[in-house]
Amino acid sequence: MTITVSGYAAQSANSPLSSFQFTRRTPRPDDVVIEILYCGVCHTDIHQARNEWHGSQYPVVPGHEIIGRVQSVGSEVTKFQPGDMAGVGCMVDSCRHCASCREGLEQYCEEGGPTWSYNDKDRHDQMPTYGGYSDRIVVTQDFAVPIPAGLDIATAAPLFCAGITTYSPLRHWQIGKGSKIAVVGLGGLGHMALKFAHALGAHTTLFTRTPGKTEEAYRLGADSVILSTDSSQMRAAASQFDFILDTVPNEHDLNPYLETLQRDGVCVLVGQLTPLQPPVAAGMLIGRRRAIAGSVIGGIAETAEMLQFCADNGIGCDVESIAIQQINEAYERMLKSDVRYRFVIDMASLKEG
Amino acid sequence: MTITVSGYAAQSANSPLSSFQFTRRTPRPDDVVIEILYCGVCHTDIHQARNEWHGSQYPVVPGHEIIGRVQSVGSEVTKFQPGDMAGVGCMVDSCRHCASCREGLEQYCEEGGPTWSYNDKDRHDQMPTYGGYSDRIVVTQDFAVPIPAGLDIATAAPLFCAGITTYSPLRHWQIGKGSKIAVVGLGGLGHMALKFAHALGAHTTLFTRTPGKTEEAYRLGADSVILSTDSSQMRAAASQFDFILDTVPNEHDLNPYLETLQRDGVCVLVGQLTPLQPPVAAGMLIGRRRAIAGSVIGGIAETAEMLQFCADNGIGCDVESIAIQQINEAYERMLKSDVRYRFVIDMASLKEG
Repeated sequence: MTITVSGYAAQSANSPLSSFQFTRRTPRPDDVVIEILYCGVCHTDIHQARNEWHGSQYPVVPGHEIIGRVQSVGSEVTKFQPGDMAGVGCMVDSCRHCASCREGLEQYCEEGGPTWSYNDKDRHDQMPTYGGYSDRIVVTQDFAVPIPAGLDIATAAPLFCAGITTYSPLRHWQIGKGSKIAVVGLGGLGHMALKFAHALGAHTTLFTRTPGKTEEAYRLGADSVILSTDSSQMRAAASQFDFILDTVPNEHDLNPYLETLQRDGVCVLVGQLTPLQPPVAAGMLIGRRRAIAGSVIGGIAETAEMLQFCADNGIGCDVESIAIQQINEAYERMLKSDVRYRFVIDMASLKEG
Repeated sequence: MTITVSGYAAQSANSPLSSFQFTRRTPRPDDVVIEILYCGVCHTDIHQARNEWHGSQYPVVPGHEIIGRVQSVGSEVTKFQPGDMAGVGCMVDSCRHCASCREGLEQYCEEGGPTWSYNDKDRHDQMPTYGGYSDRIVVTQDFAVPIPAGLDIATAAPLFCAGITTYSPLRHWQIGKGSKIAVVGLGGLGHMALKFAHALGAHTTLFTRTPGKTEEAYRLGADSVILSTDSSQMRAAASQFDFILDTVPNEHDLNPYLETLQRDGVCVLVGQLTPLQPPVAAGMLIGRRRAIAGSVIGGIAETAEMLQFCADNGIGCDVESIAIQQINEAYERMLKSDVRYRFVIDMASLKEG
């Protein structure tokens, strides 16, 4: 029997999000049904709700930073029991047999990419996927992640996108003690990058365009702060870093940051999807064997590893709790960077209307 | 006593190269004097002779693919004896104490870069450096490389730039058996890249814009050829390669090539110094954790290693021998890609006037 769900959706690119009732699939034997308690609010939600990436199929129910309580489990489910805490991130499925899936890198699934948690189609029944701005989700156990003891569920939801998006490249490029790294941008992703890099033992610098973020950056784990609009500070940072994690979601000039990489340094983009404009100077790469790379979220196994790392190191997201009724206002504030550092919807508010 | 030298120089950005007499420094205790027998002709020579990189100090004596016979050695020289064959590449000195120099990566010298073989200034006496279009060069033994037995000196000169520029990134990114790589462009660099990749055991594909190069590419070591102007061939190559060596020296669109990299694939630029225009799509990097990197020539120790690799594997450059008097005509032919694959000046021709 299909499951009736309450949520919030954008009905078109121009309409604000509003209350929306819909159904989710009849749970399959490997599915869990999760009662959603918290859902983080990611910039992607705005892009998709407003069709800024030109692929939105309405209604769009955003939300891919989901934490809740398992309500029921299918007959083949072994990983969860009713009552367990579980989370769901950006993916709800993948082909599960390509080389990337077999390596636990479902985010790079080679059969058309993973199935995204919303604004996508289920691989089996072709029904649209709807995200976490809702009271329940149905998902295969393989794409739900247990929440380890010790993690504060009220603040952990953003780990499922902002967290894993920054954790995965830090791990992939083996950042740790002895690393000298920089993070570009202090938003939802950037604040998690500082916490992770610090906990991994790296000397961590924040690049920011906004004066006055120094104390805040230190609190979050930075060892140093560079005002990227100050050319003398940038000159002094030339060839300093062996890794840069660039979390800025919109078009910006990479060249000044590349110049701060030492030989063999890598700048990894995790926020920007648009063309690299102004163009990157090839000489900037060639002269010191530098590289620019990209990275997207992380695999399911790595997400579980990250949650445990957070529990072990007392890492949570800095969140501002909102009711679902405040979501449109929250979007406007995010566009002004007026949030420290992630909005999380307390889904109990859904019952209020 | 300074050394009087005959050579060919550009006296201005607009003048053809012509006969030029000049002096080289009085040899220092660690210097060797090399009688130049052969000098390869690199695209850089044209850029510098014509001030296309805006830093030329005239007269410019080009040439950084140099092979000759040691004529005399200073009192502290231990590496060479008169009569030995020796080569000189793009560098004639570096700081020798920075981290990169200590690692044998003098090409990435962190104290202002290495001293280039021409159109630069000696680090000690501030005298201009003059290149290999001449009958003798004076160079510290540390930046001259012995020519191993078994290497044909008449064809080996281009190894000192075209060779090491392609060999070094193949080694740095550990290309070998099991690698599936592609080379973009079939010129002086590209033809060496095919030979090296093949000898290293990689499955090697050539990307070319010119139909009819297939047989030639196979002869040089390619296993496969893709016509990059054919969109169906390009589509079929999607996500195929784990490494691309891009040898194209002028502005071109990287995006179609990036699309042929599999997850974690790297595209290394060795020819292009201009901005990456049209801009690289960041999504192309992020979606499969791909990277773009750059690499410049190779260190002195690695150059010696490459020469031995060539001797061991019977690898030489495909060259067309010219007299120095033909150099201006050779430049025009290079600009039309009318050379297979490198011009080498037989320096005996200098005596002819």
